[in-house]
Amino acid sequence: MARILRINTRQKTYSYEELGDYAGLGGRALTSRMVLKEVPPTCNPIGPDNKLVMATGLLAGTIAANSGRISLGAKSPLTGGIKESNSGGMVALKMARLDLLAVVLEDKPAKDEPLCTIKITKDGVSFEDASDLEGVGTYAASEKLLQEYGKKTGLMLIGPAGETCRLVASIQFTDPRRHPTRAAGRGGLGAVMGSKRVKAIVFDDKGGSGSGYADKEAFREASRRWAQILREHPVTGQGLPGFGTAILVNIINEAGALPTKNFREGRFQNVAGITGEKMVEFMKERGGRVKEGCHPGCMIQCSQAYHDKDGDYLTSGFEYETIWAFGSNSMIDDIDAIAQMDRLCDDLGLDTIDMGNAIAMAMDGGVIPWGDAQAAIDLLKRIYDKDDPLGKIMGNGTAFAGEAFGVERIPVVKRQALPAYDPRSVKGVGVTYATTPMGADHTAGYAVCQNILKVGGDVDPLETSDANIEASRNLQIATAAVDATGLCLFVAFAVLDTEDSLDVIAKMISAKYGIDFKASDVAPVGIGILKDEYAFNEAAGFTKAHDQLPEFFSKETLAPHHTRWEYSTEELQQAKA
Amino acid sequence: MARILRINTRQKTYSYEELGDYAGLGGRALTSRMVLKEVPPTCNPIGPDNKLVMATGLLAGTIAANSGRISLGAKSPLTGGIKESNSGGMVALKMARLDLLAVVLEDKPAKDEPLCTIKITKDGVSFEDASDLEGVGTYAASEKLLQEYGKKTGLMLIGPAGETCRLVASIQFTDPRRHPTRAAGRGGLGAVMGSKRVKAIVFDDKGGSGSGYADKEAFREASRRWAQILREHPVTGQGLPGFGTAILVNIINEAGALPTKNFREGRFQNVAGITGEKMVEFMKERGGRVKEGCHPGCMIQCSQAYHDKDGDYLTSGFEYETIWAFGSNSMIDDIDAIAQMDRLCDDLGLDTIDMGNAIAMAMDGGVIPWGDAQAAIDLLKRIYDKDDPLGKIMGNGTAFAGEAFGVERIPVVKRQALPAYDPRSVKGVGVTYATTPMGADHTAGYAVCQNILKVGGDVDPLETSDANIEASRNLQIATAAVDATGLCLFVAFAVLDTEDSLDVIAKMISAKYGIDFKASDVAPVGIGILKDEYAFNEAAGFTKAHDQLPEFFSKETLAPHHTRWEYSTEELQQAKA
Repeated sequence: MARILRINTRQKTYSYEELGDYAGLGGRALTSRMVLKEVPPTCNPIGPDNKLVMATGLLAGTIAANSGRISLGAKSPLTGGIKESNSGGMVALKMARLDLLAVVLEDKPAKDEPLCTIKITKDGVSFEDASDLEGVGTYAASEKLLQEYGKKTGLMLIGPAGETCRLVASIQFTDPRRHPTRAAGRGGLGAVMGSKRVKAIVFDDKGGSGSGYADKEAFREASRRWAQILREHPVTGQGLPGFGTAILVNIINEAGALPTKNFREGRFQNVAGITGEKMVEFMKERGGRVKEGCHPGCMIQCSQAYHDKDGDYLTSGFEYETIWAFGSNSMIDDIDAIAQMDRLCDDLGLDTIDMGNAIAMAMDGGVIPWGDAQAAIDLLKRIYDKDDPLGKIMGNGTAFAGEAFGVERIPVVKRQALPAYDPRSVKGVGVTYATTPMGADHTAGYAVCQNILKVGGDVDPLETSDANIEASRNLQIATAAVDATGLCLFVAFAVLDTEDSLDVIAKMISAKYGIDFKASDVAPVGIGILKDEYAFNEAAGFTKAHDQLPEFFSKETLAPHHTRWEYSTEELQQAKA
Repeated sequence: MARILRINTRQKTYSYEELGDYAGLGGRALTSRMVLKEVPPTCNPIGPDNKLVMATGLLAGTIAANSGRISLGAKSPLTGGIKESNSGGMVALKMARLDLLAVVLEDKPAKDEPLCTIKITKDGVSFEDASDLEGVGTYAASEKLLQEYGKKTGLMLIGPAGETCRLVASIQFTDPRRHPTRAAGRGGLGAVMGSKRVKAIVFDDKGGSGSGYADKEAFREASRRWAQILREHPVTGQGLPGFGTAILVNIINEAGALPTKNFREGRFQNVAGITGEKMVEFMKERGGRVKEGCHPGCMIQCSQAYHDKDGDYLTSGFEYETIWAFGSNSMIDDIDAIAQMDRLCDDLGLDTIDMGNAIAMAMDGGVIPWGDAQAAIDLLKRIYDKDDPLGKIMGNGTAFAGEAFGVERIPVVKRQALPAYDPRSVKGVGVTYATTPMGADHTAGYAVCQNILKVGGDVDPLETSDANIEASRNLQIATAAVDATGLCLFVAFAVLDTEDSLDVIAKMISAKYGIDFKASDVAPVGIGILKDEYAFNEAAGFTKAHDQLPEFFSKETLAPHHTRWEYSTEELQQAKA
């Protein structure tokens, strides 16, 4: 039976616990409930009262395609609110095999205690000194850890940024190729792990077998249909496998919604240098790989291996949002330079969206010139030196760098940087940025679907309409529910367009647990999660005043459509579940 | 008749306006009402929608002793809430003579426009280029401006920190000796002025005569009694004139409430080097001056001229809170070094309380060693270089520096740094820190009176009692009312202990304006101001969750009394008007 493993990072002790009141929850439903119930909302995010919760989804460890995402939850050092950030990688599967629904890091040692590595096996937990990994990037650190603990282990670790509690530090996970390229990127959860002086957690599932299925045959049948649904949809079956998310560069630029020069324009003149098509062209020339999964059992295969000019592996999980952030938004048109920055962020353990925007802050504040890729790379490298003041600023992300550099136009909501879709020209996703409890986050309610891709409906992206509010609201609810299952969010493209998809997901959950879960139970799960998150944020001091975009989106029109942000804070409240 | 002067800093235009709905308000009552009515609560504090309001008190320009304070109001770049910060200097009197109740800076030019100097005379307003003063400290800048515009003008200006919109930039005012030593220090109002590209405002009152009195004889009589009240109280008549506020170093250390090493202890071992007595001893040796006023008509004379070892003028307005911040809290025991830092802050245009705490953050974060005065001085000097990343961090104050340096124990409320009284051992003032709309601020409700000085009552400073809540509440109301009159807050020592004092103040207001203002009208004025401020903050997104001290005050006991902070957030709400 799946259990919760609690680890006290100060006392270096651990205990297993039955699910109790948490039974029936998985993924984001579990992390958010646990954070709400156990973390004081006004506590210091890098203090002893914060907890870092890792939870697998309800379908983790099953044969269901794309079910291997892991949810991480805590009070965010960046936003001060609740945070769920999920990732691919190997860990969800390992946890499922070890019968762990959740692992919780609690308390914290003194700040000057050495870093430790936590090893989790079926026999229990051990704590090992990791002083030798202090300041070491995740690439070198994971290589060393895999050598020491075995190549079949799954790793979750932080880079130098997490160790020094940088506000946008990520937690990285090793991918099936054993590179630390998968990230729970947003909201600074790496700082929470760093404050607890944990460099890495090694999951060794040897001898673990997981908890099986209540009705294996029913599960098998449902999962076959599930795979078919994903295979047959053009986005999950063709678009994403062919080009990864980078396919969006051209699409969003065409739509006039590709934020350029710190959200000053909606199209980038030099876009040709940074498209998904250009990326694939280079990969074909240089021997990279298209179509890779971020976790075992992935059918969508939107990841890749991107090689440098010499044909050597450089990075993977090289997403549209990363290419945008370091690309058009910083006026950089060299995709190889952007790939280097993607790798640097993975290695330092930093969120690429917040860092790309922070680079734009440095450019807007006159610290480095617009479009200067080498200066941007050099700026990121300074973060390796924990004593470098400029590195300290950059590692704290967009809101912080903007305030350091005296920038007036700082694109953040709840101090989290805006992603790659200008809210003036993709209004549905703008509603999500403003109202999700996460801070600006496209994944929390990806209305790009209805606004641009015409998946799951067709809503005018430029109009300040109720339809955009409604689209965002429904997507926020659906997304939260998906995040509870451990399914990759990209399944949503297929789910939105396929009538029986919710039934199929419900059947898999029913067959796994021997319960009677129905398609109509999905939305209430999503609503329940959001209500937990609202409750935490309200107690932490958030009000509707925080559910709004920065004022420059209302004051400045965006070319080429000359649209503004026009929703009032009152109107936006309708987007909340 | 007193008017409002509105200056558009983008268009370089101005207009005079009748008081209209603002009639009857002065000082903080006027600035807070105007900010509430005219500034969108969620606007960007350094954007075009913020306004910088300067207002004289109701008694400005009269013969009433200590009536020359000026109130500045805006949305604070530091806290994001409403801010009133008041100061001495020459400007309130000049404004009164020019019949200006308020001057309002509105809108803003582009960021790269040259700085300007605004000159205000009885004939109107002129805008002059101030490019040559960019990056120039307030000492050199005010000397140049006084040369250019005449020694009898009163100046209000910013230093390099305000020009670059540092979050704790002050606005400095020239004192009667023409040094720019008086500061509206708290909350970053200098950044608001800097964002509007105004380096200085020159008030030339030549030919101005003010608005006189409705009943001169009655005013004269009341003001005589007023002077007597101030003269006869031991604090305003003897303590403050003799040693300035620095007399508190020994008193608060004795009380075990002198925060030491970033609020780790309540007594400083090397306190002897930084006491008021030591300061006076040096002044006698070196030829400094005790007993100076910060504005014309001051009877309390708590200021001074502090000379360096060579007998040359170094600084004045050298307050207890400054000595504490750079002293015991940073483990520095050299009062000459502290005096240098006081001068540096005046020259750079920075709040000494936030900067002293920021120095402690640098020490706690391992940037410079504890107690190293020279390193602290060097760190402050880096702020002159607008491109220095460490200078950018420091100039943004305590909360920002703490986050940059990875410090867990950051002593701020609403992002504003705590002053010089440990809230665990002066619980009444702790209640004020937590609940005033200003962010941590001792002046907003100085319960040190009842807790330590036994002025206006006797409330146990160590006990988590209702009495401390009540003391803070009453003081917050009284303080707001005092801040509306333009009287120096230090009159409160005498007012609290003298039965007819409120009557006398009411009589002066009545005689000035020909109205029937009563002692019983004073408290409602204070309550009205606070309610305006609460309303602004609520709309800006503040909740009761923000009315609390950082958690380390609840977790760690303070020697020598071994007390903790124990008020719940609910209990603290009782302290609000």
